[in-house]
Amino acid sequence: MKFSLGIDYGTNSVRALIVRCSDGAELGSCTVGYPSGKEGVLLDPKDPHLARQHPGDYLKSLEKCVVGALAEAAKTRGFRAEAVVGIGVDTTGSSPIPVDASNRAIGMLPKWRKNLNAQCWLWKDHTSWREAARITELAAQHRPHFIAKCGNTYSSEWFWSKIWHCLKTDRAAFGAAHSWVELSDWIPSVLAGVGDPADVRRGICAAGHKALFCDEWGGLPDKEFLAMLDPKLAALRDRLYADAHDANGSAGALCPAWAKRLGLPTGIPIAIGEMDVHYGALGSGIAEGTLVKVIGTSTCDCAVVPVTKNVADIPGICGIVKGAILPGFYGIEAGQSAVGDIFKWWIETVCGGDAGVYGRLEKEVAAELPGRSGLLALDWNNGNRTILVNPMLTGLVLGTTLQTTRAEIYRALIEATAFGARAIIERIEEYGVPVKRVVCAGGIAEKSPMLMQIYADVTGRTMQVAGSSQACALGAAVSASVLAGEHRDFPSAQRAMTSVKPLQYRPRPAARKTYDKLYALYMTLHDAFGGVNKAADLSGTMRDLIEIRQSQTR
Amino acid sequence: MKFSLGIDYGTNSVRALIVRCSDGAELGSCTVGYPSGKEGVLLDPKDPHLARQHPGDYLKSLEKCVVGALAEAAKTRGFRAEAVVGIGVDTTGSSPIPVDASNRAIGMLPKWRKNLNAQCWLWKDHTSWREAARITELAAQHRPHFIAKCGNTYSSEWFWSKIWHCLKTDRAAFGAAHSWVELSDWIPSVLAGVGDPADVRRGICAAGHKALFCDEWGGLPDKEFLAMLDPKLAALRDRLYADAHDANGSAGALCPAWAKRLGLPTGIPIAIGEMDVHYGALGSGIAEGTLVKVIGTSTCDCAVVPVTKNVADIPGICGIVKGAILPGFYGIEAGQSAVGDIFKWWIETVCGGDAGVYGRLEKEVAAELPGRSGLLALDWNNGNRTILVNPMLTGLVLGTTLQTTRAEIYRALIEATAFGARAIIERIEEYGVPVKRVVCAGGIAEKSPMLMQIYADVTGRTMQVAGSSQACALGAAVSASVLAGEHRDFPSAQRAMTSVKPLQYRPRPAARKTYDKLYALYMTLHDAFGGVNKAADLSGTMRDLIEIRQSQTR
Repeated sequence: MKFSLGIDYGTNSVRALIVRCSDGAELGSCTVGYPSGKEGVLLDPKDPHLARQHPGDYLKSLEKCVVGALAEAAKTRGFRAEAVVGIGVDTTGSSPIPVDASNRAIGMLPKWRKNLNAQCWLWKDHTSWREAARITELAAQHRPHFIAKCGNTYSSEWFWSKIWHCLKTDRAAFGAAHSWVELSDWIPSVLAGVGDPADVRRGICAAGHKALFCDEWGGLPDKEFLAMLDPKLAALRDRLYADAHDANGSAGALCPAWAKRLGLPTGIPIAIGEMDVHYGALGSGIAEGTLVKVIGTSTCDCAVVPVTKNVADIPGICGIVKGAILPGFYGIEAGQSAVGDIFKWWIETVCGGDAGVYGRLEKEVAAELPGRSGLLALDWNNGNRTILVNPMLTGLVLGTTLQTTRAEIYRALIEATAFGARAIIERIEEYGVPVKRVVCAGGIAEKSPMLMQIYADVTGRTMQVAGSSQACALGAAVSASVLAGEHRDFPSAQRAMTSVKPLQYRPRPAARKTYDKLYALYMTLHDAFGGVNKAADLSGTMRDLIEIRQSQTR
Repeated sequence: MKFSLGIDYGTNSVRALIVRCSDGAELGSCTVGYPSGKEGVLLDPKDPHLARQHPGDYLKSLEKCVVGALAEAAKTRGFRAEAVVGIGVDTTGSSPIPVDASNRAIGMLPKWRKNLNAQCWLWKDHTSWREAARITELAAQHRPHFIAKCGNTYSSEWFWSKIWHCLKTDRAAFGAAHSWVELSDWIPSVLAGVGDPADVRRGICAAGHKALFCDEWGGLPDKEFLAMLDPKLAALRDRLYADAHDANGSAGALCPAWAKRLGLPTGIPIAIGEMDVHYGALGSGIAEGTLVKVIGTSTCDCAVVPVTKNVADIPGICGIVKGAILPGFYGIEAGQSAVGDIFKWWIETVCGGDAGVYGRLEKEVAAELPGRSGLLALDWNNGNRTILVNPMLTGLVLGTTLQTTRAEIYRALIEATAFGARAIIERIEEYGVPVKRVVCAGGIAEKSPMLMQIYADVTGRTMQVAGSSQACALGAAVSASVLAGEHRDFPSAQRAMTSVKPLQYRPRPAARKTYDKLYALYMTLHDAFGGVNKAADLSGTMRDLIEIRQSQTR
């Protein structure tokens, strides 16, 4: 029996998962939170856009969770750590880390330990919205092809926006960095003992639209373009990378030091690091015609189209990258900047409830009728990633009366995320990418039948749930299994190692009808506040909501 | 020494106040809640528009609070109940009560005790919004002068809307009513022992725009018009009233039975009943050039203009009635459908806080900078009474992020009510009614310096606070004093008996500047959702709020 190890770096914690290569059985797993900041995130009370992470946290927590997972797996007869044949890593992104010439994260050096700009710039950091807007503007004018595949809008969540913002606001921190490495590339490189950023094997998945890397235009953006941003960025290009690899490639082999720390065999292969959602899609059975939604603090939607087919640029869809999810396919990635984060904000930050409240509200919310509250919300508390691609948008709740309850607002926020999900599906299909089935992964999909039913009713699609509750880590382990030669290719590895749960959520016709009306109103607000419609007629919106409410009350 | 008694019926309780006629000294007061429903209001969980009250509650609580106030006054040397020379009554409105031929509230009869439609239809009941819209439509077509003085819109809060809705939805309850009497007329009539609705002395204050009564067109709306609504309403006209009186008139004399119940001299005069805010304006020193804001669950704004001057009809201002506030003046009334109610909704209903939370939040909210939260709200949780005159509008909160706190939303709601207040002042001034000073009355004005400062900053006017914390009851007592001959007219009674507090709130230039920007955004939303602008450009609204937030953060 052979086993592989999947390591999944989330926003608040890292998880290790030991999987049997033959059938995907999960023998051991362990999750460890990051010790610093607020639930692992370094915040600035003065700027809600800022979100950083201490790179040292990643390594401390990694050791603990791998040791924990191995200890659990050891309880299964036949398991031996020596039989672990490969490691796969996925992380959040774009989460670039400034590193020195020895590939050390400068945020871990004593001098920079307290400087927020020297830490990892977490995916959800939006401090660089001005830079993102300027990159979009310059690209539209001088290199329109750069952004055609990412919805014609470069995001403040991405590589160049963040690095440029660092350069503009903290030259010392920028100067201390010899290079910048994505978290998803850095972790495999650390495990492989890579001591020079030039030797870090980069994944196409993060390089793709996030760093504007594409073989068609010779890799990273040309120096002439980067110099329009700042000559120092053009100079940095030489200290970054010239190649990026899909999951068929390897990031290296486990070095002796980390083999010892983790209790694993030295020299086993490490798969190319990918974004969490991409390996999550793999672990959920991504295939042509299947949309995988990884629902967590934010949501990512993944689809694939064979490279033999032509894929149009899809306006507002943030990433279409060859090989990003599955080798041999275009990976199409969309997403919502906040989903679970919005629910957490409402229940915990605003209402002051503890985590137990979700369970108590689940039934109360499930028993309500669509439209019965008269509420409508926009799911933009962290901006809009797909379709509008604008971090300068914010949340909205409309239709409140003096009787509106916290449970009703909670449901309206859930519905808002479902409307956002529907907008993405409709946009993808409009541009010729069929969505025949939807598989959801992530804790929310598993724990909340209420939410899944709302998603089915709002989108009009049957919702399936990934068989593994650790789909990202499982996908990373699938990739490691293929790399280690335990399966001949990705599709056969997926057939052997992944599944969906028997319970499916089917759309209910009556609820769909009401949600079609609410969705039309949602899109009216979406287009008005999103700038699609600059002459919006909202005069009937509140009355329409009251009429839907009354029709559901009678 | 002579004394007068002011009785003030609020939304949740009734207050009695014993006042010395010579100087307005308040010797005794007592407040008693209504025993039925939720804090005295009968609700229907299926319809947030419904709000009724049990008429029996009014009488039970009246006896208790008068006895309580007399007991407290008795502690002052020189006070004797025999020296009480008059009674004044104010109430909420329009709050019509169905009565039988003996002037008994039918809701108090055993057969009708449980029927919500047989109770008093509380001012904030909005069930009759369809009828209000139809009355507006018919009046615009056939009798435009009927609604010209109430902003060209008849309200669902008013007399005819409510009675028509009762007729349409509960013919039995309508049929059981011989007549309908406003609460402000009914209480004085009960105290005077009036046993026939035809003998009830009606106040012009409630009759005015609420029942569309005007001497110019021969009193109540003509039968031909009422028959367009329903022939039964035309027939009802004969069982209503032909005259209505200003505060120079009397509602009758205290009958022996009630004199005994209350412990007061038989035969003392009872002043004409008025709306709470109108007597509140009197008790706060209303005069030409002074706007009185009574800030409670909702807000009413009162101004007066001498009858010798010409007053234009002001679009969206709900009542311009000769004699309604002060004899010899046009009374101009505007208001916001929910103010304190919105704060209570947020803190208690949504956040689950107790009443103590307000005090804890007061300092936290006061310490924040305008615009710092990035939030903007509309104060329409109970519709919009003045300017849009539309109960089919609802609340909105915009600009939320994942960091937004309950305190920030609380402040945004307070600011929203301040923006609504500013819109009213600007509308009145635009039509030639000067606002030289603003005097605020009501518990909120007294207890929340934070709110008063925000109101000053938003409106750009100095805010004064009425000297009495019981301005409505004091105004009723002032009216009773004049009627009893203790003062020769209203202005001299006001000079002797009313005052403002020494502490004033002055607008701060920096805050004004920020609030001018936020107010412009508020009006953009106001006009877009209120139907004033049917081609609204909201594409920059969220970005503008973020920019204001950032300018306040730096």
